[in-house]
Amino acid sequence: MNNGKLIVASSSECSDLLYITNFMAPDPFIFFSSNNIKGVVVTALELKRARSECKKDITVFDRDEVISKSSPDKDIKMVLKGLVEKFPADTWEVPATFPLLYAEYLKSLGVSLKCVDGEFFPKRQTKSQEELDLIFNSVKLTEKTMHRAEDILRESTIRNDGVLLWNGDVLTSEIIKREINLEAVRCDAIAESTIVACGKHSSEPHNTGSGPIVANQPIVIDIFPRHEKSGYWGDMTRTFVKGKASEMVKKAYDAVRDARDKAKSEIKAGALPSVVHNGTMDILTERGFKTGKDDNGNYYGFFHGLGHGVGLDIHEKPGVNALNNQPFKVNDVVTVEPGVYYPEWGGIRLEDLVVVKENGIDCFTEYDNILEID
Amino acid sequence: MNNGKLIVASSSECSDLLYITNFMAPDPFIFFSSNNIKGVVVTALELKRARSECKKDITVFDRDEVISKSSPDKDIKMVLKGLVEKFPADTWEVPATFPLLYAEYLKSLGVSLKCVDGEFFPKRQTKSQEELDLIFNSVKLTEKTMHRAEDILRESTIRNDGVLLWNGDVLTSEIIKREINLEAVRCDAIAESTIVACGKHSSEPHNTGSGPIVANQPIVIDIFPRHEKSGYWGDMTRTFVKGKASEMVKKAYDAVRDARDKAKSEIKAGALPSVVHNGTMDILTERGFKTGKDDNGNYYGFFHGLGHGVGLDIHEKPGVNALNNQPFKVNDVVTVEPGVYYPEWGGIRLEDLVVVKENGIDCFTEYDNILEID
Repeated sequence: MNNGKLIVASSSECSDLLYITNFMAPDPFIFFSSNNIKGVVVTALELKRARSECKKDITVFDRDEVISKSSPDKDIKMVLKGLVEKFPADTWEVPATFPLLYAEYLKSLGVSLKCVDGEFFPKRQTKSQEELDLIFNSVKLTEKTMHRAEDILRESTIRNDGVLLWNGDVLTSEIIKREINLEAVRCDAIAESTIVACGKHSSEPHNTGSGPIVANQPIVIDIFPRHEKSGYWGDMTRTFVKGKASEMVKKAYDAVRDARDKAKSEIKAGALPSVVHNGTMDILTERGFKTGKDDNGNYYGFFHGLGHGVGLDIHEKPGVNALNNQPFKVNDVVTVEPGVYYPEWGGIRLEDLVVVKENGIDCFTEYDNILEID
Repeated sequence: MNNGKLIVASSSECSDLLYITNFMAPDPFIFFSSNNIKGVVVTALELKRARSECKKDITVFDRDEVISKSSPDKDIKMVLKGLVEKFPADTWEVPATFPLLYAEYLKSLGVSLKCVDGEFFPKRQTKSQEELDLIFNSVKLTEKTMHRAEDILRESTIRNDGVLLWNGDVLTSEIIKREINLEAVRCDAIAESTIVACGKHSSEPHNTGSGPIVANQPIVIDIFPRHEKSGYWGDMTRTFVKGKASEMVKKAYDAVRDARDKAKSEIKAGALPSVVHNGTMDILTERGFKTGKDDNGNYYGFFHGLGHGVGLDIHEKPGVNALNNQPFKVNDVVTVEPGVYYPEWGGIRLEDLVVVKENGIDCFTEYDNILEID
């Protein structure tokens, strides 16, 4: 039996494709492996670049070399037809995300497809040393962008009405996000959807924040830049208060920090993500931070997973949540990011990025946990 | 017959989903319409944000409200099961990119799916006035980033060996790209894969460029930032020479500019993209810039489409190429970007963005066409 593998996607969106080819391209192209050939099929536009940038074990084909002779045009369908004729396989394995249109077309040609439910390249979850070095680099540049945000909060002053001023203007979430994103570009990375959420905004985990930053309120800053050349992501969160935090916010901060550090102390090869997640929930509950749903159907407390894998995708395997009972493996890379969120006073989240090892973790994030900024 | 519509994707990758919901989210969520309901199903993490950011005609459901009672967990499959039970449709239309895994799962439940080959929301190609305003804004910020690049070339000096110096250092492609990307962030946009390709690099249309910029060589600068809040893209290309262009480069520049302007004069509602594309090819050939393939299988001349649609995707319908025989329609938005590329001396590309009108175009790009910079 010759099982081939087939992907049709753009590698800027499909990290499996980037992983196997190393070729970053914004438009869809085809990867296949069949018998002992690994190849990509690209357009004229990308031919030379693909030849110089693809991994050495990949053969680069021009569409014209592969296209079915019976083809009326150069549409991807016709390239697929030519491909399965030229490099036959008994069954083609395709990823869960394989486009239904192309699947139906291939099936109409009598081609056997097997959709893989789970990891298409199972090795991808376990990072190589080279990948760990690239992720470490992305974590370090993420820390630089966090320092930029923290510096701005330190440099700012508090106006009589509690609104922060910086460089003579009202300091807003938008200004801090822009400064973070500029710092990311200076580090050759792209930061999008950066979160700088103050006060009530911080009570929604994915609210990116808007408007003036005010004193004595929690400010959740969550930054996840992608290094443009390597494609690997960093991810970290800190929560600050400019001025004085309330007793409730201090108590929540301590509980979240302790829950995070407890989780970090429990993660190692063989530990179960679900158990670590549930342990975090227990600590937060014991410390008075209950999780539930209010009468309007809105959640409060700790209502997201403890963490997620990070690599060529910002959210990848393994998930660190109540549902994942697959033991951690050496060189899994995950975030550890408990948080609590209450509409009355806002939210706290603290996030580090760690590498799973035999007897514990290697924590890539090196950044103080300081709540109050003078 | 009640035909429903169904999408499972992240809206940061699937512009159909962003178009219909206006909700930008990095993780997959579900959109459906059935009978007179349009809804999205999101996780606890996104519930509040989805309620405040989705279009007014969209009802936001928590996964827990929709999930099948027989479901063992909160995996998307189980939400899909609950969804098709709760909001039945005779047939569900799904986009070409619908993930095969979910299609196979729904079919295993006896659900009827129809994969739409072509536009999932046919109205999306024709831009509304509101969309045109957002695209205009993205074009204007793109021009700002191009001015930044041009200013740097003007400010630079030529060292004895022809290498450019700027701020006391050797000027590289990487430096100009970074400065362009910084300017994009200052305009609340994200620029990725920016091209600043000098000399031989400019002979490959998608080579992003690297290393020192040298005098008297073509420098192709192609910038396509996405405005972060609106999600609409800009796209433009200019080609410069710092110092003196060769006679060949001057001749190529004039031919490409004239071909582009001829194409712009021919585009209007009812004109055929294929005819306009082929006319461009004819002009370039007449002016001595032939298109073909060398003995190594590498292309030269004009070997990409004349243009592409631009909106929430950087490359969308309509394509302006030899294969597209669908007439232009009023308020299509397309690029016009002929180019010629030769390994011997490099490449020239000039790209404007235009809106198709009844009797011609509205050109959004307002930027000089100047080859040589002193």
